[in-house]
This record gives sequence, C-alpha cells and structure tokens, in this order.
Amino acid sequence: MSYKTILGTKDFIEFLRGKKATLLLSLSTTQTCQIEGLTQAGIPGMIYLTPTLDAEFVCTGELRSLEGVVKTSKGVPTPALITRAIHLLHPFSNIELLDLGMQVKPKVNFFKCHEFDIQPSASIATGANIDAMTLFQKGVEFGKNYECRDDYILLAESVPSGTTTAYATAKALGYECEDKFSSSYKNSPKSIRATVLQQALENIKDKDDLFEKVGEVADNMLIFNAGLILGAAYKQTKIVLAGGTQMACVLLLVNAIVKYMGGSLQSDNLALCTTSWVHEDENSDIKALLEMLDFPIHAYSADFNFATSTHPALKLYDEGEAKEGVGAGGALVYGLINGVSKEQIIGTLETFLKG
Amino acid sequence: MSYKTILGTKDFIEFLRGKKATLLLSLSTTQTCQIEGLTQAGIPGMIYLTPTLDAEFVCTGELRSLEGVVKTSKGVPTPALITRAIHLLHPFSNIELLDLGMQVKPKVNFFKCHEFDIQPSASIATGANIDAMTLFQKGVEFGKNYECRDDYILLAESVPSGTTTAYATAKALGYECEDKFSSSYKNSPKSIRATVLQQALENIKDKDDLFEKVGEVADNMLIFNAGLILGAAYKQTKIVLAGGTQMACVLLLVNAIVKYMGGSLQSDNLALCTTSWVHEDENSDIKALLEMLDFPIHAYSADFNFATSTHPALKLYDEGEAKEGVGAGGALVYGLINGVSKEQIIGTLETFLKG
Repeated sequence: MSYKTILGTKDFIEFLRGKKATLLLSLSTTQTCQIEGLTQAGIPGMIYLTPTLDAEFVCTGELRSLEGVVKTSKGVPTPALITRAIHLLHPFSNIELLDLGMQVKPKVNFFKCHEFDIQPSASIATGANIDAMTLFQKGVEFGKNYECRDDYILLAESVPSGTTTAYATAKALGYECEDKFSSSYKNSPKSIRATVLQQALENIKDKDDLFEKVGEVADNMLIFNAGLILGAAYKQTKIVLAGGTQMACVLLLVNAIVKYMGGSLQSDNLALCTTSWVHEDENSDIKALLEMLDFPIHAYSADFNFATSTHPALKLYDEGEAKEGVGAGGALVYGLINGVSKEQIIGTLETFLKG
Repeated sequence: MSYKTILGTKDFIEFLRGKKATLLLSLSTTQTCQIEGLTQAGIPGMIYLTPTLDAEFVCTGELRSLEGVVKTSKGVPTPALITRAIHLLHPFSNIELLDLGMQVKPKVNFFKCHEFDIQPSASIATGANIDAMTLFQKGVEFGKNYECRDDYILLAESVPSGTTTAYATAKALGYECEDKFSSSYKNSPKSIRATVLQQALENIKDKDDLFEKVGEVADNMLIFNAGLILGAAYKQTKIVLAGGTQMACVLLLVNAIVKYMGGSLQSDNLALCTTSWVHEDENSDIKALLEMLDFPIHAYSADFNFATSTHPALKLYDEGEAKEGVGAGGALVYGLINGVSKEQIIGTLETFLKG
C-alpha cells in the first residue's frame, strides 16, 4: 500500500498516480517560535532560520545560511530530509518558493522565489499584528494568477511553532478543537502551549471581525494559503495540501471565510496528504479537524514509517517526534504512488544522516 | 551523489532535477578522421560512419547502416551505448538530429532530422575548407528559431577525430591549451596529433580573419554549435552542452566570436556536463579550458564509473579509453538526477554487450 485514506475515496489520489507535480513551499517565520519550549523545529536560538534552511535543503541538498554547521541530525532531523529524499528518487517536476515572511532569504539560484513584501509576523502571545485582509488578498491574487505547468500542486509549509498558531487560529474561529492539534514534540508542551494560547486569545476584542481576529493569532502561511486556495478554486489545477494539522487549519480558515462571506466552495480539486505519524498520533486528531469542514475533502496519509530502519535519529519519528512538515507527508505519498519503494526512501535518508 | 561540480554552483543542475529534456544530436564527419591512428571512435576503415551509426543506435537501438556487423563490442564500445541505456531507463522526452555533414544519412523514421545543406568537411591537415561564416549563421538561425517543447536541451555531438579539430581550433584562436584536450585513446596519439596540428595551423594565413582561420582548422559541429548558442542566448531555454573538451571548445569559439564582434554573452542559461573520465583525465584539463572563458559557466561531471562492473569492454572506460561522446556525460547526469541508479545503468549496458 502506498497510502491510507483518512477521508473521501481513493479516486482523487489514484488519479494523480503517474502525474507531474509542482512543489510550492510556503515559508514563514512567526516570532511565536522564540517562546522557549514551544517548538523543536530547528536549532535552539536559530529557529527563525528553519524555513530558510528547509528551502535550501530541499532545493540543493545544502544548508547554505548556516555557517559552520554541517549536520542536520542534531536531535530530530527536519522532515525536509524526507522531502529531499523523494526529490532525489522521483523528482518533483518543479519547485518554487513562496516567501511569506522569512527573516533570512534562502540562498538559491534558478529556483523561482515569489516575493509578496510580507514581513515575519509577531508573537501571538503579544499579538501577531498581521494585516490579515491584505495578506489574504495577496493569496487570492496569487491563486488566481499562478499558472501551474504540471498536473497538480503540492502545497507545503515550513513555519516553526506553526501548530500553535494553527491551534490558536482554530480556537479564535470558534472551532471545538481541544487536543486536536499536533506538535513537533512527542509529548506536546501542553502547559506552555496553553499559556501562549490564553495570551493569544486575550488579544482578540469582541468587536473584531474575522480578519482582525485572525490577524492577532495566526501566522502568514495560514492566511495567505487560505487566500491561495480560494483564488485557485475555479481553476482546474488540483491542489494537494502537503501537511498535517496546520494544513487542516488552512482549510478551517477557508471554511470560516467562505461562511463569513456568504459563499460556497467547490472543493473537488482539493485534498490533504500527511504522514502516518500525524494520522496515527494519539495526542491530536486530524480527521476530527477535517470533519468540521462544511465541504467534503479528500485526505490521505503516507503508508510509511521507519520500522525497518535502525537509525536512531529516524526512529524518533516512529516514537512521535517531529511528525510532519516541509511537505513530508505529501512528498511521501507522491513518491509511493510513483513507484518509489520504502526501502529506497529509508536507504536515501540513512545516506543523508551518514554524510 | 549524482554529479560533481567542475565550475559554478549546484543550483543550475539541481533546478533541472525532474525536468524534461530534448536531446539534440549534432552529427558531422570531418575527413580528418581518416588520418590513421588519430581516433579510435569507430570501425577502422569506416570511421566516417560513426555519427550515422551513433544516431541510429541512440534512436532505435539498431545499427542500420552497417550491414553484416551486429556487435558493437569490438574494441571500445561507443559511448552511444551509455546514452541509449539512459534513454531506456529514463527516456529523453524528444530526440532530434542535426545533420551537420554526414557521409551517410541515418536510417531512422519519425525522428526529426534537421537538414542544413552542409557537406562533410575536409581534413584539417590539408585545410578543412569550411565556409565558416555561412555555417555559423546557419547555427545562429537555428538557435534563434528552434522551439524546444521541453524544459531544456541536451546538446550532444558525434564527430570522430573531433578532439583534434577542437584542439586545432583553440590553438588557432590563440588559447594556451597545450595538453588540455582529451582523446578517445587512453594514450593520446601525441606525435600523430602534433603533426596534424602543425599541418593544420600552417594552412592559416596571417591576414585571415577569425572565421577564415576557423574554416581551415575546425569541424562543422564546432562552428554550427557556436552559432546555435549565440542564436539561442536570449531565449529562456536552458542548454546543457553534453560533452567534454569538444564542447568546451564550442564555448571557447563562442567566447572568441563574442570578443571579435565586440558583444557580450548572457551565459546564465548555459552549462556543460561531461563524464568522470574526462573530468578526471590526467592527459587533459577541461576545467582549465573552461576557466579561459570570459563569461561564467556551470560545469558538472557525472558521478559514474564502471568500478562495480566486471565486463572487460566497459572496464576500458575506467582505464581511460573512449571517455566521452554522443552526449554520454550529459545523459548520465540526466539519468542520475532523475532517480536512475548506477546499478541500473551498468545492468543495461551489460545487457547490450551480451546481445
């Protein structure tokens, strides 16, 4: 098996077997990531660099903005390794970067990096301070105008502490989502997260409209991609959200905006693909999040784990660390439906960690 | 690793990962190849047939213009086998032939063979007698007008004794290139080559302009492709020169023409990919040749050899015979960045030689 179905039928993903994909990496920093103990998605003290390094690694196999540090295997290796491994074994036809507010631009040539004049967002503990309506409209414009030259888009993200901002966003939108958002930690840092969440929600005023609320508690990736999806909704291009509960939150935001604006969404061309680590996570519930949507959605998880690997850093994934990010789940499904074997993926990853 | 970087950064070739390529085979005969002992690129007495047979083999897997001879494994097998093996494992999206003066036309249907009314050139020992300006302009026109329907072009060549004409051309242009051009022989036939070179350079008169000089000492492939590159320079199509020191000489000629005409070249969309046998050759120096250019160039070599093969004919490559040709180096890089493994390539080649 290549994948497991979370929601919907197999047909969507079976239709994509053998088809060509463009990987769009949405990259954003929120100062929320500097709250100690909230995320392990990166190098302590330099977590703001994670989206930059993830983009560099997926595109070139090198970490260019990190001088003097060669290994990525400190602690839990970034899921960017998984996405890169798939790209080596069955390349994406195209990779493009969406700069949704990074502190440091990735040092890559030739790969298109879309710029939108977006700044890193502030910490949600004190108010994210995002002009959500403007950002949303930038996403809509991009979704409307982007010409995909492949058969579908894999829309991925790298936003450290993004599950916390996603959780806060879903809460602010009124969804009953306690214990449904995952974390990069095996043992989700509940007390820190609860404190940040409470602080975040206190920044919302009763008179705030949907966009004003979201502008205080979300991150740029969530808002921009909600716009992107709505902008692209009437195009034929299929979009696979390659991610876990953060991407589920993008859909919850889309759902809320559609309701708020009194419209409806044609979701036929939309799906979500995540990892088995998110799908089977006992501390979160992506299926429940997706079932809160008013439109139907196809969702799948990659039938892949590190059971046959002996590498301790990879084993951490099976134990519940890291779980997802940088499109890992979508990349795995893409590889597996295109004939790449689990052994090849594990072999390539072990080579990276040796290097 | 799929490749090694000779010059420039990884980004150019990483950008091409997963993208589609058209293979353009430039095919030409120079009577220089009939000088005994100068080349082993073909069947003794029938070396003029090599470009024809290479084209037939890459396109169809058959040698159609060679009656009664079935095996290609006499002596050193043509690098066309490598290009064909890659085409079987991860096909080029398109193959087109450029007839730059063959004695015998390849017998293939459906594959587009571009005709330019170009005759085989004479031996440089007595003067190649090429109308270089007209030929160059044909290349420029083709480069300007050719519509590539894929993401990039792999520009390959089959010109027996082409390293000698390339060497003579670089010398005539005033480059300091002693011992920098490779040969199809392990032990480069230096005395024969030196004699031919001296004879060739004696055909140049002091009053000759750049094109007149080149018309005496070059071959059709070098001149036409220099035009092609300049004609295509302002298009978005990326061109990978798939070859060794002959393709380096195309660039040296481009460089000389740009200077001669007082222009400049935007080389962003240009790269060169060769084999490890050329890159690591102790009797030539492709890197030094490329460093003589006034424009920056990306250059890579395929991380591939026959270390794990036991086939004696293939082992000859590792010993320094043949080395490159018919786009072998570029084809290998193309295969390796698209998920083909070294084992698959060697397995396929061994099958050819069994047959």
